Amino acid sequence: MVAPALLPELWTEILVPICAVIGIAFSLFQWYVVSRVKLTSDLGASSSGGANNGKNGYGDYLIEEEEGVNDQSVVAKCAEIQTAISEGATSFLFTEYKYVGVFMIFFAAVIFVFLGSVEGFSTDNKPCTYDTTRTCKPALATAAFSTIAFVLGAVTSVLSGFLGMKIATYANARTTLEARKGVGKAFIVAFRSGAVMGFLLAASGLLVLYITINVFKIYYGDDWEGLFEAITGYGLGGSSMALFGRVGGGIYTKAADVGADLVGKIERNIPEDDPRNPAVIADNVGDNVGDIAGMGSDLFGSYAEASCAALVVASISSFGINHDFTAMCYPLLISSMGILVCLITTLFATDFFEIKLVKEIEPALKNQLIISTVIMTVGIAIVSWVGLPTSFTIFNFGTQKVVKNWQLFLCVCVGLWAGLIIGFVTEYYTSNAYSPVQDVADSCRTGAATNVIFGLALGYKSVIIPIFAIAISIFVSFSFAAMYGVAVAALGMLSTIATGLAIDAYGPISDNAGGIAEMAGMSHRIRERTDALDAAGNTTAAIGKGFAIGSAALVSLALFGAFVSRAGIHTVDVLTPKVIIGLLVGAMLPYWFSAMTMKSVGSAALKMVEEVRRQFNTIPGLMEGTAKPDYATHGGILFKYF
Amino acid sequence: MVAPALLPELWTEILVPICAVIGIAFSLFQWYVVSRVKLTSDLGASSSGGANNGKNGYGDYLIEEEEGVNDQSVVAKCAEIQTAISEGATSFLFTEYKYVGVFMIFFAAVIFVFLGSVEGFSTDNKPCTYDTTRTCKPALATAAFSTIAFVLGAVTSVLSGFLGMKIATYANARTTLEARKGVGKAFIVAFRSGAVMGFLLAASGLLVLYITINVFKIYYGDDWEGLFEAITGYGLGGSSMALFGRVGGGIYTKAADVGADLVGKIERNIPEDDPRNPAVIADNVGDNVGDIAGMGSDLFGSYAEASCAALVVASISSFGINHDFTAMCYPLLISSMGILVCLITTLFATDFFEIKLVKEIEPALKNQLIISTVIMTVGIAIVSWVGLPTSFTIFNFGTQKVVKNWQLFLCVCVGLWAGLIIGFVTEYYTSNAYSPVQDVADSCRTGAATNVIFGLALGYKSVIIPIFAIAISIFVSFSFAAMYGVAVAALGMLSTIATGLAIDAYGPISDNAGGIAEMAGMSHRIRERTDALDAAGNTTAAIGKGFAIGSAALVSLALFGAFVSRAGIHTVDVLTPKVIIGLLVGAMLPYWFSAMTMKSVGSAALKMVEEVRRQFNTIPGLMEGTAKPDYATHGGILFKYF
Repeated sequence: MVAPALLPELWTEILVPICAVIGIAFSLFQWYVVSRVKLTSDLGASSSGGANNGKNGYGDYLIEEEEGVNDQSVVAKCAEIQTAISEGATSFLFTEYKYVGVFMIFFAAVIFVFLGSVEGFSTDNKPCTYDTTRTCKPALATAAFSTIAFVLGAVTSVLSGFLGMKIATYANARTTLEARKGVGKAFIVAFRSGAVMGFLLAASGLLVLYITINVFKIYYGDDWEGLFEAITGYGLGGSSMALFGRVGGGIYTKAADVGADLVGKIERNIPEDDPRNPAVIADNVGDNVGDIAGMGSDLFGSYAEASCAALVVASISSFGINHDFTAMCYPLLISSMGILVCLITTLFATDFFEIKLVKEIEPALKNQLIISTVIMTVGIAIVSWVGLPTSFTIFNFGTQKVVKNWQLFLCVCVGLWAGLIIGFVTEYYTSNAYSPVQDVADSCRTGAATNVIFGLALGYKSVIIPIFAIAISIFVSFSFAAMYGVAVAALGMLSTIATGLAIDAYGPISDNAGGIAEMAGMSHRIRERTDALDAAGNTTAAIGKGFAIGSAALVSLALFGAFVSRAGIHTVDVLTPKVIIGLLVGAMLPYWFSAMTMKSVGSAALKMVEEVRRQFNTIPGLMEGTAKPDYATHGGILFKYF
Repeated sequence: MVAPALLPELWTEILVPICAVIGIAFSLFQWYVVSRVKLTSDLGASSSGGANNGKNGYGDYLIEEEEGVNDQSVVAKCAEIQTAISEGATSFLFTEYKYVGVFMIFFAAVIFVFLGSVEGFSTDNKPCTYDTTRTCKPALATAAFSTIAFVLGAVTSVLSGFLGMKIATYANARTTLEARKGVGKAFIVAFRSGAVMGFLLAASGLLVLYITINVFKIYYGDDWEGLFEAITGYGLGGSSMALFGRVGGGIYTKAADVGADLVGKIERNIPEDDPRNPAVIADNVGDNVGDIAGMGSDLFGSYAEASCAALVVASISSFGINHDFTAMCYPLLISSMGILVCLITTLFATDFFEIKLVKEIEPALKNQLIISTVIMTVGIAIVSWVGLPTSFTIFNFGTQKVVKNWQLFLCVCVGLWAGLIIGFVTEYYTSNAYSPVQDVADSCRTGAATNVIFGLALGYKSVIIPIFAIAISIFVSFSFAAMYGVAVAALGMLSTIATGLAIDAYGPISDNAGGIAEMAGMSHRIRERTDALDAAGNTTAAIGKGFAIGSAALVSLALFGAFVSRAGIHTVDVLTPKVIIGLLVGAMLPYWFSAMTMKSVGSAALKMVEEVRRQFNTIPGLMEGTAKPDYATHGGILFKYF
């Protein structure tokens, strides 16, 4: 008999929800702070803001005042544009969710029927798969609970994306207005809004999972094998929704972007986000539905799947066999600790330091990654020390492998630090501060052909180090603790998800803020500030994608491991025809998938270009700025290609 | 004891070299026919050509005569341009071969030292690996013979590429001159020249391999395990040279192409291959070193590796154990039959039918694929019937699997027909006759961005069906005859290599012919004819690439199988850390490799563009056609990036 973890079960039961609630409270607090930037009157915003914080006081002179221009109508214009973006994004997402809803119901039914039919819909208990001396709940029950978990995961994923979008479209115009006061102020608004999304998502994901486990436990009792098998539905729900959010939103955002730039920037030679361009609102909407809502769903999906993969392997390891609830909840404890660590990390950006210059923005965001990783390493050590027995066994394809708690600590750490490396490499390859991006810019001198060749080569090159980072993580974690190790390594990478999402969501918010400044006809100096915010934001958005893909690689392996563990498969031999052709076809699938999405982007962008050209040609006075374009047509165009 | 094959050993010993010699003779005959098109005087060419063939008579009126223009100086100009291209290609290849030579010597030394050190450079015989009752030759001998085989493979590969280039640069101006008489005449010259290369390569590859086996057998005697292990060096030599030829030549051709088009077509708005463009000769040289010499080496490499992989597995199967030489030579018999089948197929294009209209070109080339595949199916059936015992055993990772001769027939056939499918799919995705290419052309209306998106999506989509074709081939051949089945499936795909290479080499020859017509200032109607030949040629060159990649996929699996067989590995379990990270890193390598080559192409094209611009700006009278550009500088520029 293995000794249980130091932390008593009751404490675990209390600590996990407390951390989740702290995360949600912190998120609401950040929202409250952002909401104090008023979109109605400048003076009101200045005075109410001034009461907030002495150091970041809102009593400064506005740029307009310095320049002797104090056009109050600009605020009203910002509010108007914000409303247009928000309505566009909401309408797109609601249309998307209609399709997603149908899919969800259909897929839930499939899950229930397939899982339920395993024992012919029998309601009798049966001997357990691994410990045949025990009695487990019938497959029909697991089918029902899996379906419920699936729906819960799907709904949480959709809500995460939707709320993120709402916050982002709430914050973009506020960032523009704060940019009048200084780049530091604008940064903080954008970053706080990102944090709202990050903490809300991380904390609610954890809380829903925790509650689901506890509610399911009432029925399952001692049958943890069945309990955690049913819980896996949560991860599936989260990630299947993410697919829609990411792909649908991604096609929209890229098509709108390409469409707007091709006609506006290249053909008509007008600036980015110029209000005369009929596609600008669509472009800004795209950022919110693709890079905010889609990204939120995506990272939530990875997070939920990593947790579920770890839980299902743990349930057939000594944790589950000995019914050590604290050790079972190790993945949830890691995530709880992650919320606290990210909370401290956020304070470094919003309160401990103040940004005064443009060149401080990128280091500030990069420091978020470093700080969260360093503190989290300590956090993981604490959780591994109190939350795990010193020695335990992990299911390893038929055998039980003896693992020490420090080994599991290393598994989580290797994932966490691999995430940091991926973040840094992504930054190096996407930031305009380093040579790769500068080289691509340089290659544009000779035209589109060399630009495409260099750009594509750069993209390909950027995967080399991340792949090695992931490969090393897999090797270390797999060697120490088999598939459970890989799952907790993925969780390690995602443990600082709140910070990751904050700096990620910061990007599209700044991007939108710049767009609003341009459209509202604000001073050139404000646009310069938002552009600086945006440049850093593009890089951090790329970092977010790096995290999403890196963790997805680990998670998919962990899920595969959980599947083969559950299915009782002991070897997957490459030297068999089925496996080798599976690998071959599998390696081809990303190309197939990419071809389909790229074709959709291309077709949608084509239609977009034609529509924008049509408006430029048929609406008199559009180029002169005397007539307004029809912003609304594009949503309809783009949705057809989703 | 298994009954031996129907075909007596002596017959095998005679038939294989006879087929190889027939192939070489046929190749020389085609060269002779091409050489009768004279580059010195038109009348001479007409009369000497006229004696050749009544139906394809050379006595027609020339376009120039019809138009009342009969400028004999055009012939001299063609000859001059041809010489320039030929010299450029020769000089590039010689520089390339210098590097290749150093690599070859170094790698040969590595092979010898590594293989020789296995038993500490001992010269004593040792018990065999599989049949421990027998005595095998020492590792040192295998090291020496492997090194010799490696060098032979490398030299054959290099020679194949070089001779192909020579023939192509010999035929291009002749194709141009024949285009004055009619599209059918030009087609036949280009196609015959392609056939010269195809047959020379297929036959000499087979002959050298056959001779090597027989010479090595004098030393090895009954130790076939060691004999065929040493023979594998031949495949390694072939494919390692192909890497250089393909990559070096490929970078050159693409950089020259991009460089010439960017400045000439886009910036200066002058036609493709305009003699005022300083990069035109480099562009034409590129076709010959990349798509002819590189492709030749590449397909030879695949062919040699497939044969070696099959031989090494066969040597530890019942063929080798029972010393059934005919059955051992099954891969060589397939290739011998392939030469005869391709010979008949070629006659369909050159003698049985005559091309009169432009629209008949592409069907004629496509028919070559169909005809060769259909006849080859019969050929394989004959070879499988006479060359194999009715039942035998194949080494299958530790066990001996019983296989029937009809099963091996199916293995070869599935590879052969998969090749045809790959060819057709490639044609569909690259020919201007079908919607994919038309869609991409259509997307150019909205500019480079949509064009790149659509083009890349199309490229990605084009791999879907070929991957399934390869997957099915692997599944069928692997299921029937393990790794031996996969190796002979690859050989099946490559059995019609002579025809494949002929239609493949036809492409760059026609491309060059068009360039020469333009540069020599020939009539617009001739350019129209060569353009039609070129359009079909681009498609067939793509088909050649499809074959090369498809067979490489099969061959690499067969080689992997040969390696694990020889290394005594019985399972390769994905559920182990080493294998899974190997898969991950392996999946990343193509991106790494692509990034490097693309970067090289980009950099070389960039320099090319700058040099071409410099010449346009500094050489007075270049645009007006009164001064000549400096064609020679580019070779130097491009070589730095190889």
